[in-house]
Amino acid sequence: MADIGRLAAFSDAVFAIVITLLVLDLRVPEFHEGQLAASLREEAPSFLAFVVSFVYVGVLWLNHHAVLQLVRGTTLALNWINLAILFGVVLIPFPTMVLASALANGDTDDLRVAVVLYALAAALMSAPWLVFFAYLRRHPALRASHVGQDQVRAQQARPIIGLVLFGLTGLLGWIVNPLFGLLGIVVMIIYHGFTSEGVRAGTFQWGRTGRRG
Amino acid sequence: MADIGRLAAFSDAVFAIVITLLVLDLRVPEFHEGQLAASLREEAPSFLAFVVSFVYVGVLWLNHHAVLQLVRGTTLALNWINLAILFGVVLIPFPTMVLASALANGDTDDLRVAVVLYALAAALMSAPWLVFFAYLRRHPALRASHVGQDQVRAQQARPIIGLVLFGLTGLLGWIVNPLFGLLGIVVMIIYHGFTSEGVRAGTFQWGRTGRRG
Amino acid sequence: MADIGRLAAFSDAVFAIVITLLVLDLRVPEFHEGQLAASLREEAPSFLAFVVSFVYVGVLWLNHHAVLQLVRGTTLALNWINLAILFGVVLIPFPTMVLASALANGDTDDLRVAVVLYALAAALMSAPWLVFFAYLRRHPALRASHVGQDQVRAQQARPIIGLVLFGLTGLLGWIVNPLFGLLGIVVMIIYHGFTSEGVRAGTFQWGRTGRRG
Amino acid sequence: MADIGRLAAFSDAVFAIVITLLVLDLRVPEFHEGQLAASLREEAPSFLAFVVSFVYVGVLWLNHHAVLQLVRGTTLALNWINLAILFGVVLIPFPTMVLASALANGDTDDLRVAVVLYALAAALMSAPWLVFFAYLRRHPALRASHVGQDQVRAQQARPIIGLVLFGLTGLLGWIVNPLFGLLGIVVMIIYHGFTSEGVRAGTFQWGRTGRRG
Repeated sequence: MADIGRLAAFSDAVFAIVITLLVLDLRVPEFHEGQLAASLREEAPSFLAFVVSFVYVGVLWLNHHAVLQLVRGTTLALNWINLAILFGVVLIPFPTMVLASALANGDTDDLRVAVVLYALAAALMSAPWLVFFAYLRRHPALRASHVGQDQVRAQQARPIIGLVLFGLTGLLGWIVNPLFGLLGIVVMIIYHGFTSEGVRAGTFQWGRTGRRG
Repeated sequence: MADIGRLAAFSDAVFAIVITLLVLDLRVPEFHEGQLAASLREEAPSFLAFVVSFVYVGVLWLNHHAVLQLVRGTTLALNWINLAILFGVVLIPFPTMVLASALANGDTDDLRVAVVLYALAAALMSAPWLVFFAYLRRHPALRASHVGQDQVRAQQARPIIGLVLFGLTGLLGWIVNPLFGLLGIVVMIIYHGFTSEGVRAGTFQWGRTGRRG
Repeated sequence: MADIGRLAAFSDAVFAIVITLLVLDLRVPEFHEGQLAASLREEAPSFLAFVVSFVYVGVLWLNHHAVLQLVRGTTLALNWINLAILFGVVLIPFPTMVLASALANGDTDDLRVAVVLYALAAALMSAPWLVFFAYLRRHPALRASHVGQDQVRAQQARPIIGLVLFGLTGLLGWIVNPLFGLLGIVVMIIYHGFTSEGVRAGTFQWGRTGRRG
Repeated sequence: MADIGRLAAFSDAVFAIVITLLVLDLRVPEFHEGQLAASLREEAPSFLAFVVSFVYVGVLWLNHHAVLQLVRGTTLALNWINLAILFGVVLIPFPTMVLASALANGDTDDLRVAVVLYALAAALMSAPWLVFFAYLRRHPALRASHVGQDQVRAQQARPIIGLVLFGLTGLLGWIVNPLFGLLGIVVMIIYHGFTSEGVRAGTFQWGRTGRRG
């Protein structure tokens, strides 16, 4: 088994576990006899946080998936950069839980803290991607044969946009209103979902067929 | 590595994690010295819910497995449809816990809520399959070479049946009696188990040999 | 990807998750300042149960691994038999927790219940293997080319021995002394570990080399 | 599927699960309205322990990954040695939790116990590697074709160093000061991270390209 295969399999497993662990935050609250329906309604914020984070991890998986198509092999350094990316992914259930908890039991101050924490975690997740593309630019031998220097440089714009916009989202939530920040996070996740398409420009497109292995 | 391989591996991992996480709902209740046997008997509803959901996730895995045999490659859109399917799968431990909790501590009203929730989750799980088959019909290039238009159209009947019957099961549980609804869920799961056979008609059959990779 | 590959990958993932989830039962007990060491000593029974179950899941994985070497392809029926085997595997953390809990907080009656539960779970785990080998005998096309009818029949002895001896171990724990039953469980697990060798007779042996894929 | 493939896949899954489960120790503490930020600050020790263990499991995965490059096939004995290695890996979340708990709620005595426990767990993790390399030296047929006797002997130095230095770190933490011990653990993990490079000498190096499968 070649290196990139085991890196991809390991990363896939981590994504799969994180996306599945999110459901553990949906706890059945204690309820008095006959009050189950009411108790479930109190879980609504947890459910909202669960959906947002499920979609987010899905987006991150698709992006990771698409980027690995550009790569032909790996090195110790690239393995560490990938571990730094996975660190951000593995962390997601924590700000998710904090957000759910703030929505359910907190006041506006608590929600502000939770939104900023989530935006911060998301912003920091863009950082290792910057290193990833910089490394890929300096090591052409690691790139798949169809991938040129320009293509890699074009990708580098994405994590910078992510870093800046998630940072601004956090500021928005902090200074203006935490609900605006929350909305900003949702918008950013949807934006990342649509542009994972962009990452793959030149490889294959929405509706075009990848071939089976 | 081709696309469908990583999609299948990721999906398998999610199914494996969900089917294993179900056991975490079997908690050892606090017990007074000498009362372990009695405490364990109180876990019976949790155990029943565990068995039902284990079989259900098993059925869903086999169906997913069988349907992927029809597919030759994937696109960004198909990846998202697959994520929507996995969303339903990942969610299962939650209605399972709610059902166990209602069986153990609830009255008839609570059980009604839990049964309807379970049926609803199951009905909604059929929805992305509808989109899946519709997408596959419009993109012949994604289909394995032996799979015709008629075959895909035939499959589309299955999620519609699932949606309607699980919906009726929920209504049955709500209006008539939650225990009837619970029975309906079990019957539906067994039905899906036997017809995952049907999905594979033309590919291979019960007792016929698939070949090793 | 051919069928047996996805069945093996799914099973491996389930084994890997179960063997890892066992550690979640090692909870850090609440402790008063300066009393951590004393609190940890109270975790000793949990640790013992963890070690026993880790080795047991390891043995089961190796056996599963070895038996799949005899198989060339799979059918819907064989997939269900495999799911029944995995059901037993997934269940293991529960009797493990019960055993740890009985060792820590229970009296002799509680320990008796826990030992019988563990032995019962282990005995029942042998049952689907009986069905597995019976099915493999009736479907020669599913067997790897080097595997004869006699070899399959020889394997069938193993789950019968497991069923009978784990059953006797449970009885021993119930009638005579739970500690004898606990000892019996440990002996049985070690026995299964050494004879996973036996399952592979004719394929390859302790110290002989399997080839890389 | 050849043996080493399933062993590698199983090991990867275990590493992926352990590295992801670590986040479950980051619990959102109960908080009074408006006190979320303060409550989160109390989680700082848990977060520190999480980061240390994430990096540690990452290092262990890379080392495991690198060593498997030396191996061509596996036997029952090697599978058991690998399970012993995984035992140490699976255990990590427990000393991590204990360390976090001691940092948050303990006094110096508790921290000493936690540091020694962590160092002990790390030292013991080196032991099965000793057996691994000794076994590989005695079974040349299991080695990849490019790997000589000298290379295996050179590797054997590493687990001995790990055993001795982690042992000394534990002593340092016990006799002198637990914070020195904690620092020692961090240094040792970083050292192991850099020398996973060394393990791979002759196979490929930092910045050199592994080929895709």
